[in-house]
Amino acid sequence: MDSTFRRTPDIHLQDLINGLLQGNRVFLSRAITLIESKRVEDRKMSAELIERIVQPGRKSLRIGITGVPGVGKSTFIEAFGKMLTDIDKKVAVLSIDPSSNRTKGSILGDKTRMDELSRDPNAFIRPSASGSNLGGVASSTREAILLCEAAGFDIIIIETVGVGQSETVVKDMVDYFLLLMLAGGGDELQGIKRGIMEMADHILINKADRQNLKAAKKAKEDYKNAVHLFPPNEAEWVVPVGLCSALEKLGIEATWKEIEKYEKQVITSGWFTENRKRQAIKWFHERIHDRLEESFFSKPAVKNEIKKKEELISSQKISVRKAVEELFS
Amino acid sequence: MDSTFRRTPDIHLQDLINGLLQGNRVFLSRAITLIESKRVEDRKMSAELIERIVQPGRKSLRIGITGVPGVGKSTFIEAFGKMLTDIDKKVAVLSIDPSSNRTKGSILGDKTRMDELSRDPNAFIRPSASGSNLGGVASSTREAILLCEAAGFDIIIIETVGVGQSETVVKDMVDYFLLLMLAGGGDELQGIKRGIMEMADHILINKADRQNLKAAKKAKEDYKNAVHLFPPNEAEWVVPVGLCSALEKLGIEATWKEIEKYEKQVITSGWFTENRKRQAIKWFHERIHDRLEESFFSKPAVKNEIKKKEELISSQKISVRKAVEELFS
Repeated sequence: MDSTFRRTPDIHLQDLINGLLQGNRVFLSRAITLIESKRVEDRKMSAELIERIVQPGRKSLRIGITGVPGVGKSTFIEAFGKMLTDIDKKVAVLSIDPSSNRTKGSILGDKTRMDELSRDPNAFIRPSASGSNLGGVASSTREAILLCEAAGFDIIIIETVGVGQSETVVKDMVDYFLLLMLAGGGDELQGIKRGIMEMADHILINKADRQNLKAAKKAKEDYKNAVHLFPPNEAEWVVPVGLCSALEKLGIEATWKEIEKYEKQVITSGWFTENRKRQAIKWFHERIHDRLEESFFSKPAVKNEIKKKEELISSQKISVRKAVEELFS
Repeated sequence: MDSTFRRTPDIHLQDLINGLLQGNRVFLSRAITLIESKRVEDRKMSAELIERIVQPGRKSLRIGITGVPGVGKSTFIEAFGKMLTDIDKKVAVLSIDPSSNRTKGSILGDKTRMDELSRDPNAFIRPSASGSNLGGVASSTREAILLCEAAGFDIIIIETVGVGQSETVVKDMVDYFLLLMLAGGGDELQGIKRGIMEMADHILINKADRQNLKAAKKAKEDYKNAVHLFPPNEAEWVVPVGLCSALEKLGIEATWKEIEKYEKQVITSGWFTENRKRQAIKWFHERIHDRLEESFFSKPAVKNEIKKKEELISSQKISVRKAVEELFS
């Protein structure tokens, strides 16, 4: 965050908002940096910013994309994003990676990953907020979504980076959750946490390239049968299983068609709005919990005591109840 | 809780402990009632009780059993429990139902459900603690497990009652998680929450009775294929899919054989101990969170304010960040 923002916050905040609402990507980027900041002054300004840019009823679609490293998420997002900008959609790509210690320098890394898309004037690519606290990273990302929407982006793609930590968190902030899979003997399942498959709104077998097509088709049938055995999801949506080759640009449009079908269905059924409401309320409660914990755990003595108690519990030297009683006494 | 416990707590606590350690079911029952109590004096005594009965390294096996209402959980547990007591195991059955408002009178209901088992001197059946707070109910159940183990019970069965709320909670307190399913067109999946199937250590198609056998066999194959597509679980256990007719007492012993195989495998691999440690630490953290929330949410003004904020968030009149800021200011 450049320091001039803090010197005369009011004037600059208005500039920031103006730039943002005009869809200026530099301002959008700065606004995201502001809401990610943990400084007390920035927090106040962020609250003000968020309050002033939220437009109820703005239409956007939030798509979560997950899959193990190597499944081809970046290549897929590049092809998918380009297809969307070609039909005049404005596409923002955010990623969430709680384990990341990336600095701003690594934006370059992301831009190289999605080379073509990053040069597209109708696309915006932003790497994950850094931070070890998943709740904090998640909350920043949720607000970044709001900022992107205020800046006029129609499709917000949230990509999970890293393995098995952030899927649930992403699921809770998107309208549609897409799981990329590989065809193969089972090794590709390493790294996907159990339960993720049943959370997906769409399973896409990626890298269904020519030489891989037979295995991919087989995988498609298998997953189709499996999905059939899952309990119905809350959206009452029959989860499609598709093939895709991001490399050969196959299945990209078919995927979008399915998503459009979903969107239509859930807007009609009311689930779209209901789901967003539930997500917001859940987020609210998570923030309350985080704040309570922050104020409790921030005391070094408490932190230390918890560590000690954990060891005693692990070695069965103390009961959980007693550990809690002692901690709060 | 009868009041004599409180009048002269020390003597009675010692009596309670003695009776409990001798495996007396009346004392076990009273001890569970004590730890479920929310009264301040009882809490202190409970902490003392738990502290004095926990024996590190005691061997027991905790089995969670879930499935939709109508899947035949009680009939299965009755047959399974009887089979276990026949081979000289002492079996305790606890159930967890956060939505329940049962009073002690309904123990009768449970005993009627498992008629034969409840009259078995080597079995102990206890209905769910009542209470609307899932965290509290879960914590009581965890402590009830410890009490049952101290009373010499080898196998502790935790049954989920009700629909789709307590599965994760039960998963976090057991060594083995068994999912009962029905063969059929798909309707039986209503009520199972997504993600449960992938959490199971064992899928058992129940009611594979003679006239239903063909459908059950088909379901078994289907689930077997589906399970094959799941990511491997942390125990590195290949989830068995079995058939069972609790009514005709088929598949009960085969189920137990699988569980024994699992137990052997995870004790050897170290997962058994590792999992219990992780569960205890997680429980500890959950209790900390619960306590923090209790002290925060117990203020009526706060409760009221949260309700109001939720409405504002739902109607997009306020951002989550602002709602949180206002709440904590």
